[in-house]
Amino acid sequence: MNSLVRQDLVDHDPMVVTGGRPRAWVISWYLMKIAFVSCALPWPGKLKCFLLRKFGATVGENLLLKPKVNIHLPWQLEIGDHTWIGEEVFILNFSAVTIGSHCCISQRAFLCTGNHDFRDPSMPFRNAPITVKDGAWVGAQSFIAPGVTIGTDAVITAGSVVLEDMPDNMICSGNPCRPIKPRWK
Amino acid sequence: MNSLVRQDLVDHDPMVVTGGRPRAWVISWYLMKIAFVSCALPWPGKLKCFLLRKFGATVGENLLLKPKVNIHLPWQLEIGDHTWIGEEVFILNFSAVTIGSHCCISQRAFLCTGNHDFRDPSMPFRNAPITVKDGAWVGAQSFIAPGVTIGTDAVITAGSVVLEDMPDNMICSGNPCRPIKPRWK
Amino acid sequence: MNSLVRQDLVDHDPMVVTGGRPRAWVISWYLMKIAFVSCALPWPGKLKCFLLRKFGATVGENLLLKPKVNIHLPWQLEIGDHTWIGEEVFILNFSAVTIGSHCCISQRAFLCTGNHDFRDPSMPFRNAPITVKDGAWVGAQSFIAPGVTIGTDAVITAGSVVLEDMPDNMICSGNPCRPIKPRWK
Repeated sequence: MNSLVRQDLVDHDPMVVTGGRPRAWVISWYLMKIAFVSCALPWPGKLKCFLLRKFGATVGENLLLKPKVNIHLPWQLEIGDHTWIGEEVFILNFSAVTIGSHCCISQRAFLCTGNHDFRDPSMPFRNAPITVKDGAWVGAQSFIAPGVTIGTDAVITAGSVVLEDMPDNMICSGNPCRPIKPRWK
Repeated sequence: MNSLVRQDLVDHDPMVVTGGRPRAWVISWYLMKIAFVSCALPWPGKLKCFLLRKFGATVGENLLLKPKVNIHLPWQLEIGDHTWIGEEVFILNFSAVTIGSHCCISQRAFLCTGNHDFRDPSMPFRNAPITVKDGAWVGAQSFIAPGVTIGTDAVITAGSVVLEDMPDNMICSGNPCRPIKPRWK
Repeated sequence: MNSLVRQDLVDHDPMVVTGGRPRAWVISWYLMKIAFVSCALPWPGKLKCFLLRKFGATVGENLLLKPKVNIHLPWQLEIGDHTWIGEEVFILNFSAVTIGSHCCISQRAFLCTGNHDFRDPSMPFRNAPITVKDGAWVGAQSFIAPGVTIGTDAVITAGSVVLEDMPDNMICSGNPCRPIKPRWK
């Protein structure tokens, strides 16, 4: 194939990657994000939750959001109660990211909903949602691919690369990540 | 099991994760850290070493600490002489991290002492120390799990995920990381 | 071997790691970088391209450079037309990094040209260039090692660790990364 006939990635409709919000809204969130959420300053959790909700996120009770968390689009984010999100977590939610209650998303984990159809030279978006069910633990520096569901009470060990759905109640590990053994004795 | 009966991660005793220091001390370090150590500005190494020592770290001679290094708790950090630590290294030392002399911790490596007992629904901490012995090289973007000892003069190749101890004088690689061949000809 | 006889990593000739530019030039770039390129503020792409070119990069038309991209040495960087580089990408180009046209370097990818000869106790630099050919897609959170060439229209899936050359037109995956199947139907 001829790479010169390829449509530019940079020409993609911005409405696709902004979840339908106007550009001014997206920019407003971006500035709020870098001031209060993805920055290193330890702003109060209540302020961060307030901002997330104002920009359309559904956030339960008692979320603990550490500093330096990069949330791309709050209006495509749903988080349950008593969930914990660590430093340097990257939630790239071109599509919806749904995180349950009593979840732990550890430091440097990357939840990536962004994808392209690489079989088409124009690389159209093929984004897909990510779901992390109640009680699951997404380990440090793990990568969760577009379209993946992490089962209830599943454990993804640190450094894993999760390319497909992981079942409930299992410890899952590796690159690519596979279920290894039951979580509960 | 019923996730509603689960103890909140956010209720953990803060003294556990601060290594016994009072909250004001932890906050003081955090603010110093983001101003002078984890920030992008290339502050003089002498200033950074001075701060680390003031906050309880044991730091040898001639440490070279690049910008954007995230050191969680200096009072649980010991570094020997002539050691080099690269940009975006994350030292999450809820437990002690001990790095020897003549070590190289390359860019984006993550030394993670934080862990939970995931077989208990209340997810109690199960943190464990990390030791990197003299002359070892921890490669770029590698992950070192809680409790791991990297042997003397061992080499952890870039992108490896180290879940158990690695022996002296070996080149170690992969996810999970395994010893592959001797370092020295 | 005796680690006390080891030459210090910190004593390496700074000219090697700066690609022959004087120290003042390197520091000027570093300050420009943290103000306008690696920072979170969404400065206009034209400004970022202007700076990259002023500091010696060869940059084609229509480069889209997202915020928080860490480019070590622009005078050792060449990028073609219509290429897209995502947030938190780290281009550590002690040696030359050459990225073609219509490429996509996704979020958190790390192109690392830095290396040492670990068989020599003095750890001399053994840096090597990286080439990403036209139309290739380097997936999110992947790691590209020194000396690697990514073939034309190759796809490196997210979280892969690429330690050797990858062929044209193939989907490549894993740690270590291997060609898996043809890209085009």
